[in-house]
Amino acid sequence: MRLDAVLSTIDAALPQALDRLFDLLRIPSISTDPAFKPDCARAADWLVADLQSLGFEASARPTPGHPMVVAHGGTGERHLLFYGHYDVQPVDPLALWDRDPFDPELQDGPKGQVIRARGASDDKGQLMTFLEALRAWKEVHGTLPCRLTIFLEGEEESGSPSLIPFLKDHKDELTADIALICDTGLFQDTAPAIVTMLRGLLGEEMTIHAANKDLHSGMYGGAAQNPLRVLSRILAGMQDATGRITIPHFYDGVSELPDAIRSQWQALAFDHAKFLGDVGLSVPAGEEDRTPLEMIWSRPTAEINGVWGGYTGDGFKTVLPAEAHAKVSFRLVGEQDPDAIRRHFRAWVEAQLPADCSVEWQGHGNSPAGVMAIDDPAFEAARAALGEEWGRAAAYVGCGGSIPIAGYFKTYLGMDAMLLGFGRDDDQIHSPNEKYDVECFHKGIRSWARLLAKLA
Amino acid sequence: MRLDAVLSTIDAALPQALDRLFDLLRIPSISTDPAFKPDCARAADWLVADLQSLGFEASARPTPGHPMVVAHGGTGERHLLFYGHYDVQPVDPLALWDRDPFDPELQDGPKGQVIRARGASDDKGQLMTFLEALRAWKEVHGTLPCRLTIFLEGEEESGSPSLIPFLKDHKDELTADIALICDTGLFQDTAPAIVTMLRGLLGEEMTIHAANKDLHSGMYGGAAQNPLRVLSRILAGMQDATGRITIPHFYDGVSELPDAIRSQWQALAFDHAKFLGDVGLSVPAGEEDRTPLEMIWSRPTAEINGVWGGYTGDGFKTVLPAEAHAKVSFRLVGEQDPDAIRRHFRAWVEAQLPADCSVEWQGHGNSPAGVMAIDDPAFEAARAALGEEWGRAAAYVGCGGSIPIAGYFKTYLGMDAMLLGFGRDDDQIHSPNEKYDVECFHKGIRSWARLLAKLA
Repeated sequence: MRLDAVLSTIDAALPQALDRLFDLLRIPSISTDPAFKPDCARAADWLVADLQSLGFEASARPTPGHPMVVAHGGTGERHLLFYGHYDVQPVDPLALWDRDPFDPELQDGPKGQVIRARGASDDKGQLMTFLEALRAWKEVHGTLPCRLTIFLEGEEESGSPSLIPFLKDHKDELTADIALICDTGLFQDTAPAIVTMLRGLLGEEMTIHAANKDLHSGMYGGAAQNPLRVLSRILAGMQDATGRITIPHFYDGVSELPDAIRSQWQALAFDHAKFLGDVGLSVPAGEEDRTPLEMIWSRPTAEINGVWGGYTGDGFKTVLPAEAHAKVSFRLVGEQDPDAIRRHFRAWVEAQLPADCSVEWQGHGNSPAGVMAIDDPAFEAARAALGEEWGRAAAYVGCGGSIPIAGYFKTYLGMDAMLLGFGRDDDQIHSPNEKYDVECFHKGIRSWARLLAKLA
Repeated sequence: MRLDAVLSTIDAALPQALDRLFDLLRIPSISTDPAFKPDCARAADWLVADLQSLGFEASARPTPGHPMVVAHGGTGERHLLFYGHYDVQPVDPLALWDRDPFDPELQDGPKGQVIRARGASDDKGQLMTFLEALRAWKEVHGTLPCRLTIFLEGEEESGSPSLIPFLKDHKDELTADIALICDTGLFQDTAPAIVTMLRGLLGEEMTIHAANKDLHSGMYGGAAQNPLRVLSRILAGMQDATGRITIPHFYDGVSELPDAIRSQWQALAFDHAKFLGDVGLSVPAGEEDRTPLEMIWSRPTAEINGVWGGYTGDGFKTVLPAEAHAKVSFRLVGEQDPDAIRRHFRAWVEAQLPADCSVEWQGHGNSPAGVMAIDDPAFEAARAALGEEWGRAAAYVGCGGSIPIAGYFKTYLGMDAMLLGFGRDDDQIHSPNEKYDVECFHKGIRSWARLLAKLA
């Protein structure tokens, strides 16, 4: 069993793997702050060198921002692309850290050893799980397991400004059979999970106008239309009493969950009470016939993200404002068409405007939901590999938010993606005292080795 | 006819009356700006000297802020108090003035001569109409028409911080049979009017809390309660489809207009279309069976004055906020009890809160409506005097806003008030290029002479 040899090699070399990760964690590659630009370049160069040591033809490609690391290696029919990012979030407020964020340390935690450092989980620790699996594979087999492209970004935490142009310019070089994206987590800290459904997002900003100037409520109160009232009525009407969204045609393209997925989700035994209880809530607020897990993974939403109008300072001002504003967003699922929903939403609002009122629109984000085609054999291989490693069935799960890179691979390279990772909910990514469990790092490496054995 | 002699004296001495007003207007008595404190004192002293020249025992009384001018004169059974204020609004933006705001000038306007200066209408020109009427009276009769107390404030434009303590400390000295307050205007620029109904005001600020922190709409959207949605539903429900306010017991103490007042209002031939049209509106937004004039003078309101919550900056943030805020106010009429309405409103809101939500309250202003007892003979005397001078029936009118001094006289001195004045809607009080029509000044003086003749 050569897989056993690979796994033993991984186990034996864990201290060295941690040393390498610590080297990378010591580089403060904060992409959003120009002061750290040389450090981002240094992190890219470190990865290029490490990939070259694994036999890859690797280079750091300049962009208007931070470099992209691209490496090619291995041979075979099957061509996999691996994506991760080497940049990290800023560290402020620094005072809330227990130690220097760029001086990594192994610490004993209540649930085992943790790697404490900025980027330990997001995403340096996660991307290194893949490289360490390749290292062990190479040591046992002398070669890489298949044809591989490694693509590591340095701008993920700062909006990826160079990403789309780079994908367009390097379409042929980067397009593989499937992308493996390692930037997600375990399900509820224990169950391995592969994200196959990502919600889309549509943002709208509206300004309701009534009178041609702010009015005094003593002079006009009662007789004049109040745009805050008009806005409140519109926003209040987006859902009916059962939580169903009332905008016509909103549910076009929303399908019921396939039975196979539904039973996988049921098997996850999601702790709905804990999910809500952790943020001080107890009763799910969405459609009354859906569980919270369905609500956040497979159902669309209409949410109010911001409202403002009139006097909002200290004290009181008896103003009837001339205008009122709201930012509204829709999380989209399945085949919902963002453009159609924008159109239907605007028409629905406009039909409700009383006399003397008008609405002004500003469109924001507009991305369809991502639904992965799980017929690529990599999916079932990954599910099996993860299940073997973690001793628990792996599930195809949803993700309530959006992970733009998966959509970009689909849009610009025509390539499906498989998202899996080993983060835990308490990793404090983007926050002080970020950590990555040594168990996650270790079993993450082993998970990739198992998956590569199935795909090789 | 000695009234004719008084009126002729007024007509003949108009140039001198204007000279005196201009002297007063040249004093920049801006009460809110400490830099003008000496000017406020100078304006008070100027008025003391003028009142002394009319035979009053007059003095400027120090307060922690600007002085109060108090003068006593005349004899007789009947004791009238006259109230005005000698302080003025700031003048900024100065660049929008056509000339120095404190260098008054007579200018020819499209509708006749105007007095251009800060304070020309609010309130120096108005208060001088009364003093000039007394001057002419004294010239003809040799005495003042009746027992008079003159009470001129210097802090009306800066929140009257010294007023209530001064009223309490000088209750006996200031209490008369009735107060005459000259700080209002003609009805629609032409009809003399006496304000007998002032709406009260109740302010409430509420914060709706849901989750214990801001949530990400990708992670929680659909499942978590959104306080902006809860707030929108509450605010949207304050009125039903007919514009009637839905809060239980809200209309307790609201009476229908007496027939006599209703017919006076109908005779005013209020131009509802112009009233709304001037601010870009065309359809009244209040109770469907009421005219705009009723809405603003005799009907209570529930208005949203400010709403805020979530992300309100540029761009977009997919936040589900932990809290949402609104400032709401109620204009009150008749016998509505502000404390009871606050109680009913809070109970009504709290009954609508879904699971996991709470509300936090901050009370703001709380003043009952003012309804003048028009059985004092001064009211019918004033209505007759005004009708004779202006050639048009004078009406008892309402005022949608609040004029706090009338309520303070009632509360602290037990004294009713009669509010009448000669301002016009285009006087630009509080704005650049304030003016007062010479016609209003002249006929204002004559109006007081006629009224004093009836009351003497």
